[in-house]
Amino acid sequence: MEAKVIVELKDEILDPAGRARADRLNHLGFPEVKNAKLGKCIHLYIETGDREKEKERIEDMCRKLLANELIESFEIIHEKEEQRQAKVTS
Amino acid sequence: MEAKVIVELKDEILDPAGRARADRLNHLGFPEVKNAKLGKCIHLYIETGDREKEKERIEDMCRKLLANELIESFEIIHEKEEQRQAKVTS
Repeated sequence: MEAKVIVELKDEILDPAGRARADRLNHLGFPEVKNAKLGKCIHLYIETGDREKEKERIEDMCRKLLANELIESFEIIHEKEEQRQAKVTS
Repeated sequence: MEAKVIVELKDEILDPAGRARADRLNHLGFPEVKNAKLGKCIHLYIETGDREKEKERIEDMCRKLLANELIESFEIIHEKEEQRQAKVTS
């Protein structure tokens, strides 16, 4: 299975790289962009039989390596097998 | 509204930073991780009335600034208002 982990700075932490992108988008003709945050996406390719258990394992990976919880928050997106196959065949 | 843009290297492009994370996870006790790709996530805060039109606008932002389509692919995730509110209140 595949999962994506999105790691981004917590709201209270200054994010100049995100602000720079929002400013640039404003200048490029997208005034509707009010702010932006730049984070990381770690796309994991996992071989497992137990989908339920895997969610806990991925949270563990985030805490141990992928995110720094002092300043970052993380979100796990599971790609459903059906969606993934649809994407590959389309 | 909010949207997240995930930008990652195309499959055929070498991604040593992703590989390094997969190796490290293996060493930390997660042998089920077969590979990983490290990408960016740009979280956009947008003020707009027209949700349908906004999808096209965000694609346009990706092509003009956020992604380099020679080596990167992008994916747009719309946060549904209901989901977002649920997250805030939970």
